[in-house]
Amino acid sequence: MPPRKIIIDTDPGQDDAVAILLALASPQEIEVLGLTCVAGNVPLALTALNARKVCELAGKPEVKVFAGCDRPLGRALVTAEHVHGKTGLDGPDLPVPQMPLQDQHAVDFIIDTLRAAPPKTVTLCPLGPLTNIAMAFEKAPDIVERVQEIVLMGGAYFEVGNITPAAEFNIYVDPQAAHIVFSSGAPLVVMPLDVTHKALVTTPRNEAFRALGTPAGVAVAQMTDFFERFDKEKYGSAGAPLHDPCVTAYLLAPEIFSGRHINVEIETASELTLGMTVADWWRVTDRAPNALFIGDLDADAFFSLLTERLARL
Amino acid sequence: MPPRKIIIDTDPGQDDAVAILLALASPQEIEVLGLTCVAGNVPLALTALNARKVCELAGKPEVKVFAGCDRPLGRALVTAEHVHGKTGLDGPDLPVPQMPLQDQHAVDFIIDTLRAAPPKTVTLCPLGPLTNIAMAFEKAPDIVERVQEIVLMGGAYFEVGNITPAAEFNIYVDPQAAHIVFSSGAPLVVMPLDVTHKALVTTPRNEAFRALGTPAGVAVAQMTDFFERFDKEKYGSAGAPLHDPCVTAYLLAPEIFSGRHINVEIETASELTLGMTVADWWRVTDRAPNALFIGDLDADAFFSLLTERLARL
Amino acid sequence: MPPRKIIIDTDPGQDDAVAILLALASPQEIEVLGLTCVAGNVPLALTALNARKVCELAGKPEVKVFAGCDRPLGRALVTAEHVHGKTGLDGPDLPVPQMPLQDQHAVDFIIDTLRAAPPKTVTLCPLGPLTNIAMAFEKAPDIVERVQEIVLMGGAYFEVGNITPAAEFNIYVDPQAAHIVFSSGAPLVVMPLDVTHKALVTTPRNEAFRALGTPAGVAVAQMTDFFERFDKEKYGSAGAPLHDPCVTAYLLAPEIFSGRHINVEIETASELTLGMTVADWWRVTDRAPNALFIGDLDADAFFSLLTERLARL
Amino acid sequence: MPPRKIIIDTDPGQDDAVAILLALASPQEIEVLGLTCVAGNVPLALTALNARKVCELAGKPEVKVFAGCDRPLGRALVTAEHVHGKTGLDGPDLPVPQMPLQDQHAVDFIIDTLRAAPPKTVTLCPLGPLTNIAMAFEKAPDIVERVQEIVLMGGAYFEVGNITPAAEFNIYVDPQAAHIVFSSGAPLVVMPLDVTHKALVTTPRNEAFRALGTPAGVAVAQMTDFFERFDKEKYGSAGAPLHDPCVTAYLLAPEIFSGRHINVEIETASELTLGMTVADWWRVTDRAPNALFIGDLDADAFFSLLTERLARL
Repeated sequence: MPPRKIIIDTDPGQDDAVAILLALASPQEIEVLGLTCVAGNVPLALTALNARKVCELAGKPEVKVFAGCDRPLGRALVTAEHVHGKTGLDGPDLPVPQMPLQDQHAVDFIIDTLRAAPPKTVTLCPLGPLTNIAMAFEKAPDIVERVQEIVLMGGAYFEVGNITPAAEFNIYVDPQAAHIVFSSGAPLVVMPLDVTHKALVTTPRNEAFRALGTPAGVAVAQMTDFFERFDKEKYGSAGAPLHDPCVTAYLLAPEIFSGRHINVEIETASELTLGMTVADWWRVTDRAPNALFIGDLDADAFFSLLTERLARL
Repeated sequence: MPPRKIIIDTDPGQDDAVAILLALASPQEIEVLGLTCVAGNVPLALTALNARKVCELAGKPEVKVFAGCDRPLGRALVTAEHVHGKTGLDGPDLPVPQMPLQDQHAVDFIIDTLRAAPPKTVTLCPLGPLTNIAMAFEKAPDIVERVQEIVLMGGAYFEVGNITPAAEFNIYVDPQAAHIVFSSGAPLVVMPLDVTHKALVTTPRNEAFRALGTPAGVAVAQMTDFFERFDKEKYGSAGAPLHDPCVTAYLLAPEIFSGRHINVEIETASELTLGMTVADWWRVTDRAPNALFIGDLDADAFFSLLTERLARL
Repeated sequence: MPPRKIIIDTDPGQDDAVAILLALASPQEIEVLGLTCVAGNVPLALTALNARKVCELAGKPEVKVFAGCDRPLGRALVTAEHVHGKTGLDGPDLPVPQMPLQDQHAVDFIIDTLRAAPPKTVTLCPLGPLTNIAMAFEKAPDIVERVQEIVLMGGAYFEVGNITPAAEFNIYVDPQAAHIVFSSGAPLVVMPLDVTHKALVTTPRNEAFRALGTPAGVAVAQMTDFFERFDKEKYGSAGAPLHDPCVTAYLLAPEIFSGRHINVEIETASELTLGMTVADWWRVTDRAPNALFIGDLDADAFFSLLTERLARL
Repeated sequence: MPPRKIIIDTDPGQDDAVAILLALASPQEIEVLGLTCVAGNVPLALTALNARKVCELAGKPEVKVFAGCDRPLGRALVTAEHVHGKTGLDGPDLPVPQMPLQDQHAVDFIIDTLRAAPPKTVTLCPLGPLTNIAMAFEKAPDIVERVQEIVLMGGAYFEVGNITPAAEFNIYVDPQAAHIVFSSGAPLVVMPLDVTHKALVTTPRNEAFRALGTPAGVAVAQMTDFFERFDKEKYGSAGAPLHDPCVTAYLLAPEIFSGRHINVEIETASELTLGMTVADWWRVTDRAPNALFIGDLDADAFFSLLTERLARL
């Protein structure tokens, strides 16, 4: 079977970086057609820089990296330097990338790629705010039905929120874009905080990354060293949650995840609950399902997979 | 120490009934000044009837029972016969009560009682929608600072919702009233689904009620038999959650509960998330705390207390 | 024909004062059962004081005056001293009233009066925020169908707003109460800014009041002298709009008013447009009519009536 | 002085057609760089067709016409066949156009044109929903400060609404796009219903068009014959309001228009008032001005200009 073709839409971010590394380490299963960058964890200029740093760290300077939207739809950008550090990729000291940023706008790359490929053969993997994806769907609605699947990190239900009491960061930053994507009709797999908070990098798990001794392994360990401070202080958890790598892991090993095919609506009207992913987990409404909402994973299998693949870089 | 004076505001409801029985069974610690009824689980006429049935079941026909508001503020009443049955108290076959309903309106009883008693000596225990309490606070704002404490069942955070994906029933039915109460400044202890879903009547626990052999013990067991069907089918849980008795148990044994003193806002603007109790559990906002939001209890201690007290009736 | 029985619910206010005077000057047509005061233009203590000043100015110290709610439903009170002056009744120097304030709460007076009178024989005339009326309807829903008519000053459509770009003051101060009243089903006549801005006290009209030479005539002229500053400066209009007297004038001479029987909804969800009276003047929706929304009056006839009646006091 | 360079963003529509004809008839003052089409009055396929019909009617098949977005941001498209007829251009029988539709997406044409021209030399003239403009601003925020001016038809204040009681059609169809444009910081001139309802094609004015005897003159008269039915029936007005030509006329003769430089916000949160242009005409808020909101025009001068220019085609 040929590898699955994906576009990773991303705002790195340490956990984005690990998600990208996992994809680039798995060429037999995954073909990364391009990385499209968006403003989110840090401003666009930094996410476009960080994405290229990660490609070079993986030894894949040939990957195409595109810059997209630098702000959400109709709202000011909210960033998360308090989590990710000033660069967005604090932790390791990665060199300034030599590889170029592509000239084309990320939104157009997404559109052209989906139009050029046979229907249902390209998967979108958003790891940040959904601005680029929503813009592509608005500009070229014909591509929606050409998407094989959208596997995204975002939202929360029982875990409720991290940026506000009701909302997860990626969805909160651009709720209108999220609304467009969640109501688009494209097949949707959602990795909310409910599952990503179970993908905790404990000390032994991080030491396993470091023990790889490779540039990628060491850098991932250093990124996690930095990243985990936030969650340890806030939640008292045993380590950092590796949010975004859940997306890549799902492509490689969907069997280690479980969830429910349910309706998920995005709150866009009220400031108090803005960006909430209102997930009908208990099926108390008659709204039609539009997403596979993941609630659990086999964390040991997830980290085994991750460590094993990082070792290949 | 004299018993603590309380008014129970209620919409019985099987779990309301148990909460009332627990209070009436504990005269050394609790003096029930009156039961004020509100529309909620079933319409007002039924809750006012059921409250008196419960008093007579407890052998306390001298308790004063008042009827209050028959509809929420500015919204149509939503009821929950799908949970509680047509009568609101399905399960046992309790006789038609002989004791009278008081003439005074529940709202005025609340106001007069708080004004007549020394400041900070009367506690309000709302077990249903907060309509009566909000109306009393609006009609007589001077009573707010005379309230000793409000200990209420309502809301949800990690457990999110039971009537909609975002809201718990009591708050959903009258979000405006909840907003008035939560922003009143009165000291507030909240028993949300987060804790009440841990107060599960398992089969052994229910058999312990039945084994009391008293009318109250048997009736509670029968009510639970009926009531548990809903949660077992919906959540696959091991038994029915005894939501409202958590309120009374907190008065008797606060040490078996734990929670956080945090800000809780009520969603009133968006239909999608209407009635959500937006609890700042992780303290990600700078909004001032206004409630002790309970998150856990010692379930064994809770059921021991409950069984021991029911035996006294 | 016996005089029409009315309760005036009011927050005086210079224009409220004129509306009350007009009613008290017309005993053959109107029987004022009581004045119920509410917080609005100024706080409740002042509106309850001002109402009595006006009764004594009219030489009617026997009128019953009741204090009601001192704040709107679930919102902080907004007042309008910038329009009405610090006392709410700036302009004339009226003596401290000797007549008593009734002990009963305004809400209960409204309820008891409607229950005691034959059905459909008492009209409510709200001149301020609708808090008291909404509270009475919530506490005693049985009275709604006993109301003969509600003739109120509030709202705006083509004139849009005076306190915000979208809302008129009375409705803006308590939009939840307005929603309760407008959706109650009671027969409703609305005097919005659309009509009241056509009831302008030009200089000749005010001099006609003053020329009456009576205490009431002179005081009305002095109140208008004060009151008109605001509208002249803001709108560049030819004089002050006599908002509230339109309500009383409608009872005396409905034929000088014209409007449409249409649907009017109250905006309660959005801060930007809060309190807007969304009037379906052009009937572009299929929402059922719930109000006679007045759009025009014969201003000369209105001022003739007003002057003639004030002369009787 | 060289002609002013403009892009007309449009959803023809009879009044769009007249606005375009007026621009194409005025080459000394206006250089039409392109027509960008959007879904609005009718679906995109029809607006892109109608735009070309109008260019050919004007004898200008060399004008570049682009198709843009076929739906608003995050909402289903609402159209207005009840006003404009099934084709959007009912009235005259215009031939199927021979001129081509450009391949480039309208959004990209807007972006490229603004980037290629010297800063502040290109004016945008939106006559329909603001989807294309908002998309261009989101995709390429650098162009916002390059815009000379946006002169648009949309919104209403004293005239309030035509599609709902609170909203004008163009803004209602895509309130999120309108919010993006109105908050963009670009210089904004707004032609709301307040002014366009004063640009009424009375019978003598329409006969003046017809009397030109030219294809354009006759077609405009036929379009107006059709178009006016709606307003005559609904408002009882003396003729059809020529909404969109106000935009072009403003470029040619700004002195015949008057308005206020004020703050205008777009309602996006509440379904009841969705798309309202909340204009601070009376300056009752402290929100900063962001638009010149036109309230009046010299209708005779307007129609003289229009007739004189149409005669040149």
